[in-house]
Parts: sequence; C-alpha cells; structure tokens
Amino acid sequence: MVGSTVRGMDLTATTADLASAATEVSRLLPTRVLDPVLAGLVLRAGPAGVELAGSDRERAVRLNRPATTHTDGEVVVPAKPLADTLRGLDDPQVRLVVEGSRLAVRTTTARFALPLLDLPSHPGVPPLPPAVGRIPAEALAAALTPVSSATSKDDVLPIFTGVRMLGTGHRIELIATDRYRMAYATVPWTPEGSLNVLAPAALMADVARLPQHTVVTVHADEDRIALSWTGGSVSTTLLAAPFPDDRARKLLEAAIDSTVVVEADALAGAVRRATPYSGPHGSVTLQVEDSELRVRGSDPQTGESEESIKATIDGNRVTKTFQARYLADALKAFSGRRVELRIQDGLRSTVLTSQPGEDGVELKYLVVPLRRVE
Amino acid sequence: MVGSTVRGMDLTATTADLASAATEVSRLLPTRVLDPVLAGLVLRAGPAGVELAGSDRERAVRLNRPATTHTDGEVVVPAKPLADTLRGLDDPQVRLVVEGSRLAVRTTTARFALPLLDLPSHPGVPPLPPAVGRIPAEALAAALTPVSSATSKDDVLPIFTGVRMLGTGHRIELIATDRYRMAYATVPWTPEGSLNVLAPAALMADVARLPQHTVVTVHADEDRIALSWTGGSVSTTLLAAPFPDDRARKLLEAAIDSTVVVEADALAGAVRRATPYSGPHGSVTLQVEDSELRVRGSDPQTGESEESIKATIDGNRVTKTFQARYLADALKAFSGRRVELRIQDGLRSTVLTSQPGEDGVELKYLVVPLRRVE
Repeated sequence: MVGSTVRGMDLTATTADLASAATEVSRLLPTRVLDPVLAGLVLRAGPAGVELAGSDRERAVRLNRPATTHTDGEVVVPAKPLADTLRGLDDPQVRLVVEGSRLAVRTTTARFALPLLDLPSHPGVPPLPPAVGRIPAEALAAALTPVSSATSKDDVLPIFTGVRMLGTGHRIELIATDRYRMAYATVPWTPEGSLNVLAPAALMADVARLPQHTVVTVHADEDRIALSWTGGSVSTTLLAAPFPDDRARKLLEAAIDSTVVVEADALAGAVRRATPYSGPHGSVTLQVEDSELRVRGSDPQTGESEESIKATIDGNRVTKTFQARYLADALKAFSGRRVELRIQDGLRSTVLTSQPGEDGVELKYLVVPLRRVE
Repeated sequence: MVGSTVRGMDLTATTADLASAATEVSRLLPTRVLDPVLAGLVLRAGPAGVELAGSDRERAVRLNRPATTHTDGEVVVPAKPLADTLRGLDDPQVRLVVEGSRLAVRTTTARFALPLLDLPSHPGVPPLPPAVGRIPAEALAAALTPVSSATSKDDVLPIFTGVRMLGTGHRIELIATDRYRMAYATVPWTPEGSLNVLAPAALMADVARLPQHTVVTVHADEDRIALSWTGGSVSTTLLAAPFPDDRARKLLEAAIDSTVVVEADALAGAVRRATPYSGPHGSVTLQVEDSELRVRGSDPQTGESEESIKATIDGNRVTKTFQARYLADALKAFSGRRVELRIQDGLRSTVLTSQPGEDGVELKYLVVPLRRVE
C-alpha cells in the first residue's frame, strides 16, 4: 500500500451501502489521537468497487462495497465525519470525488468536503493471516457467545479475558474462565490448517456483526486471528499468554452427586426473580427436592423469596448457593432448551450442559458454588 | 393518612397492572436514603381497588389500579424490589397479602416476602392542590415539549430551568428561555381557576407519560402544580423565582428584515448534516438567496459543507450564524410543517413560527444568532 499515493479517486455508490460500512469502520477507530491520520478511514476505489478499511493497531476491518469507479485511487479521510455525513444523507446515490486537497461527498443539492489525510503516514491495515478453516457464522456465534460470557472484564490477568480456541480435527474447542466459572464448547468446522490461539473476548463483538447465513473463513498465525467473508474481514491481535489447558480440561471431569434436569428459561426466570432478594453477596440458593428445584433468596433489607420449578431429579437432595449473575449467565447459554445441572460434592463446581443443538455446538458451563452463609 | 396503621391488607390483581404502576412509582423515588421508609411505596387497598403512591418530597405520584380487595389496608414497602418482583412474574394474576411483618407477593409457585416499613414514619404523599382547569394531554404535551426544550439544564439560575405557565382566558401561555433562545406557546384549555406558576421543566417527563386521549385536570396553588386523570395523578413543587414576563414578551415583537419559509424537516436535515462541519463553536450559517436557503458549515479539522434548501423568500439577502443544536431544537418543534423564519437585523433573534396545528398550539421559537466569525 505504501507509495500508492494516487489522489484522483472518483466513484458513485449507493449511499446506504457506504454509510453502513463507514459507520462500522469508524466505530473501530480511536477518536482522540494526536495524529488525525490514525483515526483515518482508508478508501480504495478500483474496478471491483470500493474498499473501506481502518485499524486501531489491535483490531482491523476491511469492507468491500459495490461502486461505479470513474477513477481508481486511494485516500485517507477522517472516519467519523465521513460516516456521520453519509448516514445523514437522504439521497439514494452519492458521489465521492477528490477535488484538490479535499474528498468531496456530493449529492444533487449538497457538497461536503473532507480534508485528505496523508496516506503515506497511515500505518496501514494489516493483511490477513493464512486461512485455517471454515465455519458457518451462526455456529461460531452460538459457541463463542456463551464462552466469551465467562471471561473476566478485568484485564489485570490477560488469560482470564481471552477465549482459548483450539482446532482438534473437525471441531473447534473453545474455553474461557474467570476462575469463578468456566465455559467449554465444541463446534464443527472444516479445518484447512492449524488453530491454536488465545483470542480476546472482544472478537465476539465482531462475530455478532457478521452477515447472516454466511460461511466465514478463519485466519490465524502467531500474532492475529481474523474472520473473512464475501464482502469483508475483521482481524484482531492475539493475547500472548499461556492458557492452562490441562487444568481447565480436568475441571470438566465431574463426580456427580445429584443431577437435575429443568427448562433453562424457567430456572433463569426464577433466578431473575430471586435476584432482588440475593443479599449483599448477590447469591441465590438452589435446593434439590424430590421432583422440584427450589430457588431461594434472602436479603436483610429486601426480604425473602422462594419459588419452585418442576425438575427431574436423579441423586441426592442437596443444597447449593451460587452468585445469581453467574447462574443467570450460564442459563442464558441454554435458553430455549432443557438444561442438565450436574451437582458435585462440596465446593466443586456445578456443570450445566444439554443435548447439542442443530448447529452441533456442545456446551458445558461450570459455576463454582459459594460457601454457605446461613 | 397518619394513624391509619391497619396492617391486614390482602388483594388479588392483574400482575401487569401492578407491575407498570409500581415501576412508575419506584422510578420517582430516591434509591439511596438513610431511612428506607423514604424510598417506600405506599399501597392502599380498598373497595375501589388499590392505590400505589410515592413521593420524593419534590415530586409525588398516585396511581389507581383495579384489584379485588379481600381485606382493606395500607402498608409501605421498599419500592424497587416490589417493582422488580412484579415485573419479573410470568403469572397473569398476583396476590399481595400481609403476613406478619411481611408483605407477601404470592403466585401459585412462588412467594416473595417484603418487609413492611413503618407507615407512621412515612412523610406521606402530598394532597392535590385545587383544580384550575382542564386540557387534553396531547395538547399540553404539544405545547410543553418545545417550550421545555428551551430551558437551561444548569440549575444555578433556577428561572432558566423553569417553564412559565400562565392561564389567560381560554388559553395557557407557556414561556421558557435559557437566555440564548426562548420558546413561547399558547394552547387552548378550559379554565376553572387561576394558573400563574413557574413549573420545573421536569414536569415534561410526567406529561410524556400521561395516558393517550385523556383530558387531564390541572391543579395548582402557591407551592405545587399537579396533573390528574382517571387512574392517577402527578404533582411537583414549583420553582420559587420571579419570571421576567415583560422582558420575555418584548422579545416576541420582531422587526423583520427578511422572511424565509421552508419545510422544517428539510432544513433540520441540512442542519444535522452540517453539524459535523460546525467547528469549535458548533455553528452553522444560513445564507438567504433568491429562492433558496444555503446551509453552510466550516471546521478546521473536518472540512466544509454547503447544502441548498428550496425556500420562499421575502426581504433582504442576509446571512446569519447560529448554534447548530439550538437551531435543531427549534426546528424539531415544527417537524412535519412549513416553518417561517423571521430574521431580524444584527444580533436580534430570529423568530421561528408556523400556522397553529389542529391541537390549537401556537408556537414561537426565538434563537439568538452568533457574532460572525469569518
């Protein structure tokens, strides 16, 4: 890209196409930078259309949109005003044309002139690492959503903020933990190479925005993970920390004391209703009875709650106390399904799991119980 | 209410009815108070149903909902957990019953027990001032929305945060100004007494939540203004500051230099699109041409913008610069209509006005131009 300082760009495109792409790119870029070129959006017009790209050094995005290119060229302009201007236009078509030191955004009645930033000073948008496999966007999202919910928001210890992604044959394994809970999922993919990374949980935000019904290509090397699809790509820097794979896997081996099968949404509703009564520690208690699960809360200010949920029980009548929000996060991952709670003895974690869905995602969600405070 | 410490309340009601009312009341109440009774929701059950009420000493709300009362009574309970609990229930019906020192919220499968707070310590919900007139909720909202948008958010000078409301015969006059703009509206009502208040702009939030197609009764005395309707009432403490009525009215007498008639939404769109180019002072320039209005912006970082709007012009070709957001606020009040801009000489304010709508609301919105910085 360095050296391609052609400045004669001229194209016409659908306003909505460009507006959505410019908004996506500008959302990624920093807004307060000493050198405005670092908040620049790179526009490249060619015979195939126009590419809008940007990078904040950690993350990078490239989006391709159809356009009628009158003159090929590449420019860098301030991202946010371009996105704001395109989004505000009522005209269905818009022309972007370099006029002197400006990129003019033209409609029949208006002209918006953005300064051209210095293209050679732009750090560039990193190229994609090699492709390592393919996976439907929905399946990746279905596995990554619950797993990334188990990461820590506190980045003092980076390994707890990341999602371990490991290609093992025709499945990807995903693991994340913040020490108080752990999520483990496997999902089918079509491998084309090796995947062995600790991806930042922020990757989830990119996956959530992927176009529907798309098979994405996963790219990875030592430094970056990327997802590409017809129309664009996103990439992000990996976390450089060794993940405790063996210890994590060992936690999955449960010595079950009691098994409870319930509708995940019914239990989630009861936990949500008990949350105002979850007290200073935000805890709710699950009490296994003969054919029901009792959800209890107690708070010195708010009062007490008790609700019964129909359940299929196998094993001992036990009582466990959990952080209400960890239990809610875990149950959300099983929404619409029956969930099996495998309760272990003492302070060993409770394992939530269910039959795999149509997307082939297998999921286990571990939540560590609290020491009982009666 | 003092002394009515009956504690045997028992009622059954529709969950959604109680949930929405409890949510409304709890939204009004402070959440961090030394004495929890001050954040209490007063429930009173009687033959006519149940009343949910609360007060933060400045504002007060009472909402009546249908209920089957098994035992009359009055209790105070923590507002937020009651609202959270009712909102979270899936059961269509709910029973509220006093059980010892608790108010139990009961469904077929759950019991939530809220502590009863000390009713005699509750400061009470102030009674309504006398009725002074009636007005359809929509008409009041149509007049109050634009006028309250011209108030100051900075409460160092209380008069600039209030809306002057003055009953003059069969209309209410409403005026507000933050010194940089002023909004003046009149709206028809049915007077039954005298209205002469400076209401806090927060009254608008109450008006926006009024039920649709309702005629509300306005109540006022020296201390409070209130609105009541079938099903409830809201009241709020007045601002105790003398409003400069005469000076405000004098500003409405315009010495017109040029008159511009445009579609309010077309001009609002152009102002919105010029805003990214509005520079360090957030200003846009309107340039009156022969048969169009030109909207211009200029920013050292973002670049320049220029857009033309079809307009009917009468008078001189003048150029005025305004705060973009003040112009946007003013134009929003005329959305869907043609607006007339009466431009005065020099730094005298520009008056925006239009034909009254079907609701009979007459509106003038004044915006003070900026000194030109070229």
